[in-house]
Parts: sequence; structure tokens; C-alpha cells
Amino acid sequence: MERIIIDMDEVIADPMGDMIDWYKKEYGGDVDWDKMLVGSWLKGFPEHHQAAIQERLLSPGFFRHLPVIEDSVDVLKELNKKYEVFIVSAAMEFPNSLKDKLEWLGDHFPFLTWKQIALTGSKDLVYGDYMIDDHVKNLKGFKGKPYIYTAAHNLEVTGYDRINSWKEAADIFLK
Amino acid sequence: MERIIIDMDEVIADPMGDMIDWYKKEYGGDVDWDKMLVGSWLKGFPEHHQAAIQERLLSPGFFRHLPVIEDSVDVLKELNKKYEVFIVSAAMEFPNSLKDKLEWLGDHFPFLTWKQIALTGSKDLVYGDYMIDDHVKNLKGFKGKPYIYTAAHNLEVTGYDRINSWKEAADIFLK
Repeated sequence: MERIIIDMDEVIADPMGDMIDWYKKEYGGDVDWDKMLVGSWLKGFPEHHQAAIQERLLSPGFFRHLPVIEDSVDVLKELNKKYEVFIVSAAMEFPNSLKDKLEWLGDHFPFLTWKQIALTGSKDLVYGDYMIDDHVKNLKGFKGKPYIYTAAHNLEVTGYDRINSWKEAADIFLK
Repeated sequence: MERIIIDMDEVIADPMGDMIDWYKKEYGGDVDWDKMLVGSWLKGFPEHHQAAIQERLLSPGFFRHLPVIEDSVDVLKELNKKYEVFIVSAAMEFPNSLKDKLEWLGDHFPFLTWKQIALTGSKDLVYGDYMIDDHVKNLKGFKGKPYIYTAAHNLEVTGYDRINSWKEAADIFLK
């Protein structure tokens, strides 16, 4: 069975969308999409609100109630029958996210067991046949076939095969 | 730089020792060392106290204040200069342990960064040159060179090179 390593944030969970919704309500402002293109959606928020954004990102509960990326549940359910699926999130930077992420996965992806989950500092440690991730830093050392999952902060990245939606992922892996 | 993957429980942290001390104080009883030899130190506690042991094991804080295995700090500090060291703990079964383990490492092994830590469901996911672990289930799928770290529950395991103490590990990896 081939192994697929799937990221969480901006791939199956939507912290950016959640943060933007909160920001609009809290401050009435909008994000600058161009500024994200350096590879971090956090850069899209104004400099003078960065501390508030960081505080919310690091607080317990932020990763517990995130929206699910469209079609990810249905497609992962099918992938899980044909592949060895692992969810790997580089979460160690956010100590309060660890339990939240595990519980969030239990809620939305109950067909995955805890044996299929890893929260790491670096993804250099893991190996598999395919990796689906929104960050070049995670994909670049990967020994298998990497796919970049399209997110607002990686639109200008080149050099990787791109997956724009979970429907596209189904076309690639389940046809 | 070669990569060493090092386990936490019974290798650098001592949950068994902590649980036995607590058990003696709480119930005045002792453990049955022979019963552990099936590969789990938990089996050393009497059947009628298993629920209490499990409850303590799963509770927040248990993994936060564990004793450190002798000489592990000094030897890991040196290993960290000559190898790419990763601490990998199969912790997903214990959701309340995740943050505790990260903070415990920060206290006792401050020379390791969060990038060097991974909390996983399965260790099949990780690769490296060497793995030091007390459980056959973690070592058996490893593609590099496995070492079994001696613990009360693995004394009868054969088929692996054995490390009996961190002084011995220093002899193997730092000479």
C-alpha cells in the first residue's frame, strides 16, 4: 500500500479563513493578499495588528474549532481505503495546538485512528510515497513525490505539481 | 550528519519509576516484575488496580513531572553536537500527554529545539540511521539500525543490540 502524508493547516483545516473572519469582525479591516505571497498568510494582516493575531494563534482553542477545507473529508475517506494515510502537522511551534488538533481530527475525520496522526517539529523526519502540503519548507526535503496544495500564500510558488482542490486530488489519486 | 531517533518513556523519562513510587505510597503494594515481561510495565500492577493506574496515566500532568533517566541529559547534549537528534514519542494514545511532554523536554533538555521533537501515533512514519527505543513494536519496522534500550518489560527480548544505560550509549556513539 502506498503512503500519502497529508498536512493539516490550509490543506484540510482552514486557520487562515477563520482568522480573517475573526479579524473582520474584531477590527473591521481586510487583509492584504499580496503581502501573503512571501509564503505566510500571517503577513497579510497589518503590522500593527500582528501581536493580536499571534496571541490568538497561540491561544488554547484556536485550532480546536477551525473550518474544514471543502471536500477533504469525503476524499480522505476514500484515500484511506486505498492508501496508507498519515496526517502530519508541523505543530510543535504551537504547544497549545497539540491536543486541539488531535480532537479536531477526531471530530471531522473519525475514520482515521490516532496511529495515523503525527505532530512534529520538522517534516524532514517522515517518509512516504506522496506528500500534500502548502509549504515549500515541508516539501523540499521530501524523498517521495511532493504536491503543493494551493493556498493564498503559495500562489507564486513554482517547481511543484499543484493540487488546487480535494476534487483534483481525487482525480490524481483515486482514478 | 547521521540521524538518531530517541524515544522518551523508559529511555529518557521514567513513567514506570514514577508510577511505582506513587503506587507504593497510595496502596502500599509492590509490582510483580515477572508479569511485565510480556512487554508492558503496566502489567506489573495488580489486576484490581489497573483502572487506577490507567486513570493516572491518562490524566493531565502525569507526563509533566517525570524523573529523568540517569545520564541521559549529559549524553544527549554530546550526541546533539555530532548527530542530528530527534526525540520521537508515540504519544497520540495519550492526548493529555502532548503538551506535558513538550514542556518536560524544554525543562530537562533545553539544548534541543522544538524542531527536533515529534509526537506520533506510529513510528513507522519516521526514518533515520539509528533508533533507540524500549519497544519492539517501534523498532521492528525501522529501516536504520535499531537498539533496544533496556527496561524491566523488555528483559527477555532477543534479536536486537541492547543499550543498558546512557553511559553505554556514549561508548557506542561518542567514542
